[in-house]
Amino acid sequence: MTTFLTDSIENGICFLTESESRHAIKVLRMKNKDELSIINGNGLYGKGEIIDSNPKKTKIKIYELKEIKKPVPLALAFCPTKNSDRNKLIIEKATEIGVTDFFPLISQNSERRKWNTEKFEKILISSIKQSQRFWLPTIHPAGKFNDFIKKISYKLKFLAHCKEGEKIQLKKNSNSLESQVVVIGPEGDFTFEEIELAKENNYKMISLGNNRLRTETACIAAVTLMKL
Amino acid sequence: MTTFLTDSIENGICFLTESESRHAIKVLRMKNKDELSIINGNGLYGKGEIIDSNPKKTKIKIYELKEIKKPVPLALAFCPTKNSDRNKLIIEKATEIGVTDFFPLISQNSERRKWNTEKFEKILISSIKQSQRFWLPTIHPAGKFNDFIKKISYKLKFLAHCKEGEKIQLKKNSNSLESQVVVIGPEGDFTFEEIELAKENNYKMISLGNNRLRTETACIAAVTLMKL
Repeated sequence: MTTFLTDSIENGICFLTESESRHAIKVLRMKNKDELSIINGNGLYGKGEIIDSNPKKTKIKIYELKEIKKPVPLALAFCPTKNSDRNKLIIEKATEIGVTDFFPLISQNSERRKWNTEKFEKILISSIKQSQRFWLPTIHPAGKFNDFIKKISYKLKFLAHCKEGEKIQLKKNSNSLESQVVVIGPEGDFTFEEIELAKENNYKMISLGNNRLRTETACIAAVTLMKL
Repeated sequence: MTTFLTDSIENGICFLTESESRHAIKVLRMKNKDELSIINGNGLYGKGEIIDSNPKKTKIKIYELKEIKKPVPLALAFCPTKNSDRNKLIIEKATEIGVTDFFPLISQNSERRKWNTEKFEKILISSIKQSQRFWLPTIHPAGKFNDFIKKISYKLKFLAHCKEGEKIQLKKNSNSLESQVVVIGPEGDFTFEEIELAKENNYKMISLGNNRLRTETACIAAVTLMKL
Protein backbone atom coordinates (compact mmCIF):
# COMPACT_ATOMS: atom_id res chain seq x y z
CA MET A 1 0.00 0.00 0.00
CA THR A 2 1.39 3.43 -0.94
CA THR A 3 2.00 5.86 1.92
CA PHE A 4 1.14 9.57 1.77
CA LEU A 5 1.71 12.56 3.99
CA THR A 6 -1.15 14.50 5.54
CA ASP A 7 -0.98 17.58 7.73
CA SER A 8 -4.16 17.17 9.74
CA ILE A 9 -6.18 14.22 10.94
CA GLU A 10 -9.54 14.78 12.69
CA ASN A 11 -12.54 12.59 13.43
CA GLY A 12 -11.43 9.87 11.07
CA ILE A 13 -11.05 12.24 8.13
CA CYS A 14 -7.88 13.71 6.69
CA PHE A 15 -6.66 15.55 3.62
CA LEU A 16 -3.44 14.90 1.74
CA THR A 17 -1.11 17.88 1.34
CA GLU A 18 -1.30 19.65 -2.02
CA SER A 19 1.76 17.95 -3.54
CA GLU A 20 0.73 14.56 -2.20
CA SER A 21 -2.80 15.04 -3.59
CA ARG A 22 -1.38 15.82 -7.02
CA HIS A 23 0.92 12.78 -6.80
CA ALA A 24 -1.89 10.42 -5.77
CA ILE A 25 -4.50 11.60 -8.27
CA LYS A 26 -2.51 12.90 -11.24
CA VAL A 27 0.56 10.64 -11.20
CA LEU A 28 -0.67 7.41 -9.64
CA ARG A 29 -4.22 7.99 -10.99
CA MET A 30 -5.87 6.86 -7.77
CA LYS A 31 -9.64 7.04 -7.53
CA ASN A 32 -12.39 7.08 -4.90
CA LYS A 33 -12.41 3.89 -2.78
CA ASP A 34 -8.70 3.21 -3.45
CA GLU A 35 -6.88 2.23 -0.26
CA LEU A 36 -3.75 3.90 1.04
CA SER A 37 -1.80 4.48 4.20
CA ILE A 38 -1.04 7.89 5.66
CA ILE A 39 1.46 9.41 8.04
CA ASN A 40 1.57 12.92 9.45
CA GLY A 41 5.31 12.99 10.11
CA ASN A 42 4.63 13.31 13.85
CA GLY A 43 4.12 9.69 14.77
CA LEU A 44 0.61 9.05 13.46
CA TYR A 45 0.11 6.19 11.06
CA GLY A 46 -3.22 5.26 9.51
CA LYS A 47 -4.92 3.23 6.84
CA GLY A 48 -7.90 4.48 4.87
CA GLU A 49 -9.56 5.04 1.53
CA ILE A 50 -10.07 7.97 -0.80
CA ILE A 51 -13.54 9.52 -0.53
CA ASP A 52 -12.87 12.61 -2.66
CA SER A 53 -10.16 12.31 -5.32
CA ASN A 54 -9.57 16.05 -5.51
CA PRO A 55 -6.10 16.56 -7.09
CA LYS A 56 -5.45 19.60 -4.86
CA LYS A 57 -6.90 18.33 -1.58
CA THR A 58 -7.62 14.62 -1.60
CA LYS A 59 -10.01 13.59 1.18
CA ILE A 60 -9.42 10.32 3.02
CA LYS A 61 -11.61 8.34 5.39
CA ILE A 62 -9.45 6.62 8.00
CA TYR A 63 -10.20 3.07 9.21
CA GLU A 64 -7.36 2.52 11.58
CA LEU A 65 -4.98 4.87 13.36
CA LYS A 66 -1.86 4.18 15.45
CA GLU A 67 0.48 6.42 17.38
CA ILE A 68 4.14 5.50 17.01
CA LYS A 69 6.57 6.43 19.79
CA LYS A 70 9.08 9.16 19.06
CA PRO A 71 12.53 7.69 18.28
CA VAL A 72 15.56 8.30 20.49
CA PRO A 73 17.33 11.42 19.15
CA LEU A 74 20.16 10.79 16.69
CA ALA A 75 21.63 14.04 15.41
CA LEU A 76 23.97 14.65 12.50
CA ALA A 77 25.78 18.00 12.55
CA PHE A 78 27.76 18.54 9.35
CA CYS A 79 29.42 21.20 7.26
CA PRO A 80 27.54 21.15 3.95
CA THR A 81 29.62 20.45 0.84
CA LYS A 82 29.89 22.83 -2.13
CA ASN A 83 28.17 20.25 -4.32
CA SER A 84 24.45 20.34 -3.71
CA ASP A 85 23.86 16.75 -4.91
CA ARG A 86 26.17 15.49 -2.17
CA ASN A 87 24.16 17.42 0.43
CA LYS A 88 20.99 15.81 -0.90
CA LEU A 89 22.66 12.42 -0.56
CA ILE A 90 23.48 13.16 3.10
CA ILE A 91 19.88 14.09 3.88
CA GLU A 92 18.42 11.13 1.95
CA LYS A 93 20.68 8.39 3.29
CA ALA A 94 20.90 9.65 6.87
CA THR A 95 17.10 9.89 6.97
CA GLU A 96 16.73 6.30 5.75
CA ILE A 97 19.17 5.13 8.42
CA GLY A 98 17.35 6.98 11.17
CA VAL A 99 18.69 10.48 11.85
CA THR A 100 16.12 12.61 13.71
CA ASP A 101 17.88 16.00 13.61
CA PHE A 102 20.15 17.65 11.06
CA PHE A 103 22.31 20.64 12.01
CA PRO A 104 24.04 22.29 9.03
CA LEU A 105 27.14 24.00 10.45
CA ILE A 106 29.41 26.76 9.27
CA SER A 107 32.97 26.19 10.44
CA GLN A 108 36.25 27.98 9.73
CA ASN A 109 37.04 25.89 6.64
CA SER A 110 33.46 25.54 5.40
CA GLU A 111 33.13 25.68 1.65
CA ARG A 112 29.42 26.42 1.69
CA ARG A 113 28.16 29.20 3.94
CA LYS A 114 24.57 29.40 2.70
CA TRP A 115 21.98 26.76 3.25
CA ASN A 116 18.40 26.56 2.07
CA THR A 117 16.42 23.99 4.05
CA GLU A 118 13.41 24.14 1.72
CA LYS A 119 15.38 22.43 -1.03
CA PHE A 120 15.60 19.31 1.10
CA GLU A 121 12.03 18.95 2.33
CA LYS A 122 10.88 16.77 -0.55
CA ILE A 123 13.81 14.42 0.09
CA LEU A 124 12.91 14.15 3.78
CA ILE A 125 9.37 13.19 2.90
CA SER A 126 10.25 10.64 0.22
CA SER A 127 12.92 9.12 2.46
CA ILE A 128 10.67 8.60 5.48
CA LYS A 129 8.03 7.06 3.24
CA GLN A 130 10.65 4.82 1.60
CA SER A 131 12.16 3.70 4.88
CA GLN A 132 8.80 3.38 6.65
CA ARG A 133 9.54 5.89 9.37
CA PHE A 134 6.75 7.81 11.07
CA TRP A 135 8.53 10.87 12.35
CA LEU A 136 9.82 13.53 9.99
CA PRO A 137 13.39 14.55 10.89
CA THR A 138 14.04 18.22 11.64
CA ILE A 139 16.53 20.21 9.60
CA HIS A 140 17.56 22.99 11.97
CA PRO A 141 18.59 26.42 10.64
CA ALA A 142 22.27 26.62 9.65
CA GLY A 143 24.42 27.86 12.52
CA LYS A 144 27.99 28.58 13.50
CA PHE A 145 30.11 25.64 14.65
CA ASN A 146 31.21 27.38 17.87
CA ASP A 147 27.65 28.25 18.93
CA PHE A 148 26.46 24.73 18.21
CA ILE A 149 29.25 23.09 20.20
CA LYS A 150 28.62 25.30 23.23
CA LYS A 151 24.82 25.22 23.24
CA ILE A 152 23.42 21.95 21.93
CA SER A 153 23.23 19.11 24.40
CA TYR A 154 23.12 15.33 23.82
CA LYS A 155 24.03 12.44 26.10
CA LEU A 156 26.75 11.08 23.77
CA LYS A 157 28.72 13.54 21.65
CA PHE A 158 31.25 12.62 18.95
CA LEU A 159 33.37 14.61 16.52
CA ALA A 160 35.30 13.14 13.56
CA HIS A 161 38.48 14.74 12.28
CA CYS A 162 41.57 13.67 10.32
CA LYS A 163 44.27 15.35 12.42
CA GLU A 164 46.57 13.48 14.82
CA GLY A 165 45.45 12.80 18.38
CA GLU A 166 43.76 10.25 20.57
CA LYS A 167 40.58 8.84 19.09
CA ILE A 168 38.05 6.20 20.07
CA GLN A 169 36.11 3.73 17.94
CA LEU A 170 32.61 4.97 17.19
CA LYS A 171 31.19 1.46 16.78
CA LYS A 172 32.11 0.52 20.35
CA ASN A 173 31.30 3.80 22.07
CA SER A 174 27.97 4.74 20.54
CA ASN A 175 24.64 3.52 21.90
CA SER A 176 21.42 3.81 19.93
CA LEU A 177 19.35 3.77 23.13
CA GLU A 178 20.81 7.12 24.26
CA SER A 179 20.52 10.54 22.62
CA GLN A 180 23.57 11.00 20.38
CA VAL A 181 25.18 13.52 18.07
CA VAL A 182 28.09 13.25 15.65
CA VAL A 183 29.81 16.24 14.07
CA ILE A 184 31.43 15.85 10.63
CA GLY A 185 33.79 18.50 9.26
CA PRO A 186 34.27 20.22 5.92
CA GLU A 187 36.70 18.94 3.27
CA GLY A 188 39.44 21.13 4.75
CA ASP A 189 38.80 19.51 8.17
CA PHE A 190 38.24 21.28 11.50
CA THR A 191 40.93 23.61 12.81
CA PHE A 192 42.92 22.88 15.97
CA GLU A 193 40.90 25.56 17.83
CA GLU A 194 37.63 23.98 16.78
CA ILE A 195 38.81 20.54 17.91
CA GLU A 196 39.93 21.99 21.27
CA LEU A 197 36.56 23.70 21.75
CA ALA A 198 34.77 20.41 21.12
CA LYS A 199 37.00 18.61 23.63
CA GLU A 200 36.32 21.28 26.27
CA ASN A 201 32.61 20.64 25.69
CA ASN A 202 32.94 16.90 26.32
CA TYR A 203 32.97 15.72 22.74
CA LYS A 204 34.78 12.41 22.16
CA MET A 205 37.11 12.39 19.17
CA ILE A 206 36.51 9.57 16.71
CA SER A 207 38.21 8.17 13.64
CA LEU A 208 36.39 6.66 10.66
CA GLY A 209 39.24 4.35 9.59
CA ASN A 210 42.38 4.85 7.51
CA ASN A 211 40.72 5.70 4.23
CA ARG A 212 40.04 9.36 3.56
CA LEU A 213 36.26 9.58 3.24
CA ARG A 214 34.36 12.30 1.39
CA THR A 215 32.15 14.42 3.67
CA GLU A 216 28.94 12.68 2.61
CA THR A 217 30.49 9.22 3.02
CA ALA A 218 31.72 10.14 6.51
CA CYS A 219 28.20 11.35 7.42
CA ILE A 220 26.51 8.15 6.22
CA ALA A 221 29.15 5.88 7.78
CA ALA A 222 29.03 7.64 11.17
CA VAL A 223 25.26 7.50 11.58
CA THR A 224 25.27 3.86 10.43
CA LEU A 225 27.72 2.94 13.19
CA MET A 226 25.65 4.84 15.77
CA LYS A 227 22.24 3.50 14.78
CA LEU A 228 22.56 -0.03 13.35
CA MET B 1 50.21 16.26 -4.02
CA THR B 2 47.87 14.89 -6.68
CA THR B 3 47.86 11.12 -7.18
CA PHE B 4 47.76 9.44 -10.60
CA LEU B 5 47.42 5.91 -11.85
CA THR B 6 50.17 4.19 -13.85
CA ASP B 7 50.15 0.72 -15.35
CA SER B 8 53.87 -0.03 -15.33
CA ILE B 9 56.80 1.00 -13.16
CA GLU B 10 60.35 -0.01 -14.13
CA ASN B 11 63.82 1.19 -13.17
CA GLY B 12 62.54 4.35 -11.56
CA ILE B 13 60.55 5.39 -14.63
CA CYS B 14 56.83 5.10 -15.25
CA PHE B 15 54.17 6.37 -17.62
CA LEU B 16 50.70 7.57 -16.70
CA THR B 17 47.80 5.80 -18.41
CA GLU B 18 46.31 7.64 -21.38
CA SER B 19 43.36 9.13 -19.53
CA GLU B 20 45.53 10.09 -16.55
CA SER B 21 48.08 11.72 -18.89
CA ARG B 22 45.33 13.79 -20.46
CA HIS B 23 44.01 14.76 -17.04
CA ALA B 24 47.44 15.78 -15.74
CA ILE B 25 48.58 17.75 -18.76
CA LYS B 26 45.38 19.06 -20.36
CA VAL B 27 43.12 19.57 -17.36
CA LEU B 28 45.54 20.29 -14.50
CA ARG B 29 48.09 21.84 -16.92
CA MET B 30 51.03 20.18 -15.21
CA LYS B 31 54.49 20.68 -16.69
CA ASN B 32 57.95 19.09 -16.61
CA LYS B 33 59.46 19.07 -13.10
CA ASP B 34 56.01 19.20 -11.44
CA GLU B 35 55.80 16.75 -8.54
CA LEU B 36 53.12 14.13 -8.13
CA SER B 37 52.43 10.81 -6.50
CA ILE B 38 51.56 7.63 -8.35
CA ILE B 39 49.86 4.34 -7.60
CA ASN B 40 49.55 1.28 -9.81
CA GLY B 41 46.41 -0.10 -8.15
CA ASN B 42 48.37 -3.17 -7.06
CA GLY B 43 49.95 -1.88 -3.89
CA LEU B 44 52.76 0.28 -5.26
CA TYR B 45 52.94 3.89 -4.17
CA GLY B 46 55.55 6.34 -5.36
CA LYS B 47 56.53 9.99 -5.51
CA GLY B 48 58.16 11.54 -8.52
CA GLU B 49 58.29 14.34 -11.07
CA ILE B 50 57.21 14.77 -14.67
CA ILE B 51 60.09 14.47 -17.13
CA ASP B 52 58.01 14.40 -20.31
CA SER B 53 54.65 16.16 -20.21
CA ASN B 54 53.22 14.18 -23.12
CA PRO B 55 49.39 14.44 -22.91
CA LYS B 56 48.98 10.88 -24.17
CA LYS B 57 51.79 9.19 -22.27
CA THR B 58 53.25 11.34 -19.52
CA LYS B 59 56.67 10.14 -18.37
CA ILE B 60 57.56 10.26 -14.68
CA LYS B 61 60.86 9.85 -12.86
CA ILE B 62 60.29 8.18 -9.49
CA TYR B 63 62.19 9.27 -6.36
CA GLU B 64 60.65 7.02 -3.80
CA LEU B 65 58.66 3.79 -4.03
CA LYS B 66 56.81 1.79 -1.38
CA GLU B 67 54.93 -1.48 -1.47
CA ILE B 68 51.69 -1.47 0.52
CA LYS B 69 50.37 -4.76 1.88
CA LYS B 70 47.24 -6.16 0.30
CA PRO B 71 44.15 -5.46 2.46
CA VAL B 72 42.13 -8.25 4.08
CA PRO B 73 39.34 -9.21 1.61
CA LEU B 74 36.00 -7.46 2.13
CA ALA B 75 33.49 -8.47 -0.53
CA LEU B 76 30.15 -6.94 -1.40
CA ALA B 77 27.82 -9.17 -3.43
CA PHE B 78 24.70 -7.27 -4.50
CA CYS B 79 21.84 -7.36 -6.94
CA PRO B 80 22.29 -4.22 -9.07
CA THR B 81 19.40 -1.74 -9.07
CA LYS B 82 17.50 -0.66 -12.18
CA ASN B 83 18.77 2.88 -11.70
CA SER B 84 22.34 3.13 -12.93
CA ASP B 85 23.19 6.16 -10.74
CA ARG B 86 22.42 4.11 -7.65
CA ASN B 87 24.78 1.39 -8.85
CA LYS B 88 27.49 4.02 -9.31
CA LEU B 89 26.85 5.19 -5.77
CA ILE B 90 27.33 1.64 -4.46
CA ILE B 91 30.67 1.29 -6.25
CA GLU B 92 31.89 4.76 -5.23
CA LYS B 93 30.97 4.65 -1.56
CA ALA B 94 31.86 1.01 -0.93
CA THR B 95 35.27 1.61 -2.54
CA GLU B 96 35.91 4.60 -0.27
CA ILE B 97 34.97 2.55 2.77
CA GLY B 98 37.26 -0.32 1.77
CA VAL B 99 35.56 -3.04 -0.27
CA THR B 100 38.11 -5.15 -2.18
CA ASP B 101 35.76 -7.26 -4.33
CA PHE B 102 32.39 -6.56 -5.92
CA PHE B 103 30.17 -9.40 -7.13
CA PRO B 104 27.12 -8.23 -9.11
CA LEU B 105 24.49 -10.96 -8.72
CA ILE B 106 21.41 -11.97 -10.62
CA SER B 107 18.78 -13.39 -8.30
CA GLN B 108 15.17 -14.47 -8.81
CA ASN B 109 13.73 -11.00 -8.15
CA SER B 110 16.56 -9.03 -9.78
CA GLU B 111 15.40 -5.96 -11.64
CA ARG B 112 18.60 -5.61 -13.65
CA ARG B 113 19.98 -8.66 -15.42
CA LYS B 114 22.69 -7.00 -17.49
CA TRP B 115 25.81 -5.47 -16.07
CA ASN B 116 28.63 -3.61 -17.79
CA THR B 117 31.71 -3.43 -15.56
CA GLU B 118 33.51 -0.97 -17.83
CA LYS B 119 31.06 1.78 -16.90
CA PHE B 120 32.35 1.68 -13.36
CA GLU B 121 36.11 1.62 -13.88
CA LYS B 122 36.52 5.39 -13.77
CA ILE B 123 34.64 5.51 -10.48
CA LEU B 124 36.90 2.84 -8.98
CA ILE B 125 39.98 4.82 -9.94
CA SER B 126 38.71 8.19 -8.69
CA SER B 127 37.49 6.60 -5.46
CA ILE B 128 40.77 4.90 -4.56
CA LYS B 129 42.63 8.12 -5.28
CA GLN B 130 40.13 10.09 -3.19
CA SER B 131 40.26 7.71 -0.26
CA GLN B 132 44.02 7.15 -0.50
CA ARG B 133 43.86 3.42 -1.08
CA PHE B 134 46.59 1.60 -2.98
CA TRP B 135 44.81 -1.49 -4.24
CA LEU B 136 42.16 -1.25 -6.94
CA PRO B 137 39.07 -3.30 -6.03
CA THR B 138 37.98 -6.01 -8.45
CA ILE B 139 34.53 -5.96 -10.02
CA HIS B 140 33.90 -9.61 -10.87
CA PRO B 141 31.73 -10.59 -13.85
CA ALA B 142 28.01 -10.69 -13.06
CA GLY B 143 26.90 -14.15 -12.02
CA LYS B 144 23.90 -16.08 -10.79
CA PHE B 145 23.06 -15.91 -7.10
CA ASN B 146 22.91 -19.70 -6.70
CA ASP B 147 26.33 -20.26 -8.30
CA PHE B 148 27.89 -17.53 -6.19
CA ILE B 149 26.49 -18.89 -2.93
CA LYS B 150 27.74 -22.40 -3.66
CA LYS B 151 31.18 -21.57 -5.02
CA ILE B 152 32.64 -18.44 -3.47
CA SER B 153 34.36 -18.88 -0.15
CA TYR B 154 35.04 -16.37 2.65
CA LYS B 155 35.71 -16.87 6.35
CA LEU B 156 32.69 -14.81 7.47
CA LYS B 157 29.59 -14.83 5.29
CA PHE B 158 26.48 -12.69 5.83
CA LEU B 159 23.23 -12.23 3.95
CA ALA B 160 20.70 -9.43 4.59
CA HIS B 161 17.00 -9.93 3.93
CA CYS B 162 13.72 -8.42 5.12
CA LYS B 163 11.72 -11.61 5.71
CA GLU B 164 10.95 -13.07 9.12
CA GLY B 165 13.47 -15.35 10.81
CA GLU B 166 16.37 -15.42 13.22
CA LYS B 167 18.98 -12.76 12.50
CA ILE B 168 22.18 -11.62 14.14
CA GLN B 169 23.67 -8.13 14.52
CA LEU B 170 26.25 -7.42 11.83
CA LYS B 171 28.15 -4.90 13.97
CA LYS B 172 28.87 -7.50 16.64
CA ASN B 173 29.54 -10.50 14.41
CA SER B 174 31.75 -9.03 11.70
CA ASN B 175 35.53 -8.79 12.04
CA SER B 176 37.62 -6.65 9.72
CA LEU B 177 40.70 -8.80 10.34
CA GLU B 178 39.08 -11.83 8.66
CA SER B 179 37.98 -12.26 5.04
CA GLN B 180 34.29 -11.32 4.86
CA VAL B 181 31.43 -11.13 2.41
CA VAL B 182 27.95 -9.64 2.67
CA VAL B 183 25.14 -10.33 0.21
CA ILE B 184 22.47 -7.66 -0.35
CA GLY B 185 19.26 -8.47 -2.21
CA PRO B 186 17.19 -6.76 -4.90
CA GLU B 187 14.28 -4.45 -4.10
CA GLY B 188 11.90 -7.41 -4.18
CA ASP B 189 14.12 -9.20 -1.62
CA PHE B 190 15.50 -12.74 -1.83
CA THR B 191 13.08 -15.64 -2.14
CA PHE B 192 12.64 -18.28 0.58
CA GLU B 193 14.59 -20.79 -1.55
CA GLU B 194 17.48 -18.37 -1.95
CA ILE B 195 17.57 -17.71 1.79
CA GLU B 196 17.53 -21.46 2.48
CA LEU B 197 20.37 -22.06 0.02
CA ALA B 198 22.47 -19.39 1.75
CA LYS B 199 21.79 -20.95 5.16
CA GLU B 200 22.85 -24.38 3.86
CA ASN B 201 26.09 -22.78 2.73
CA ASN B 202 26.84 -21.35 6.18
CA TYR B 203 25.70 -17.81 5.61
CA LYS B 204 24.58 -15.95 8.74
CA MET B 205 21.35 -14.00 8.33
CA ILE B 206 21.56 -10.34 9.34
CA SER B 207 19.16 -7.46 9.80
CA LEU B 208 20.00 -3.83 9.03
CA GLY B 209 17.54 -2.34 11.52
CA ASN B 210 13.83 -1.58 11.42
CA ASN B 211 13.87 1.01 8.66
CA ARG B 212 13.44 -0.28 5.11
CA LEU B 213 16.67 0.70 3.36
CA ARG B 214 17.09 1.17 -0.38
CA THR B 215 19.49 -1.36 -1.97
CA GLU B 216 22.36 1.12 -2.22
CA THR B 217 21.87 2.31 1.37
CA ALA B 218 21.89 -1.28 2.61
CA CYS B 219 25.13 -1.93 0.69
CA ILE B 220 26.88 1.12 2.13
CA ALA B 221 25.60 0.51 5.66
CA ALA B 222 26.61 -3.18 5.65
CA VAL B 223 30.19 -2.63 4.52
CA THR B 224 30.53 0.25 7.00
CA LEU B 225 29.56 -2.02 9.89
CA MET B 226 32.01 -4.71 8.66
CA LYS B 227 34.98 -2.44 8.05
CA LEU B 228 34.91 0.56 10.42
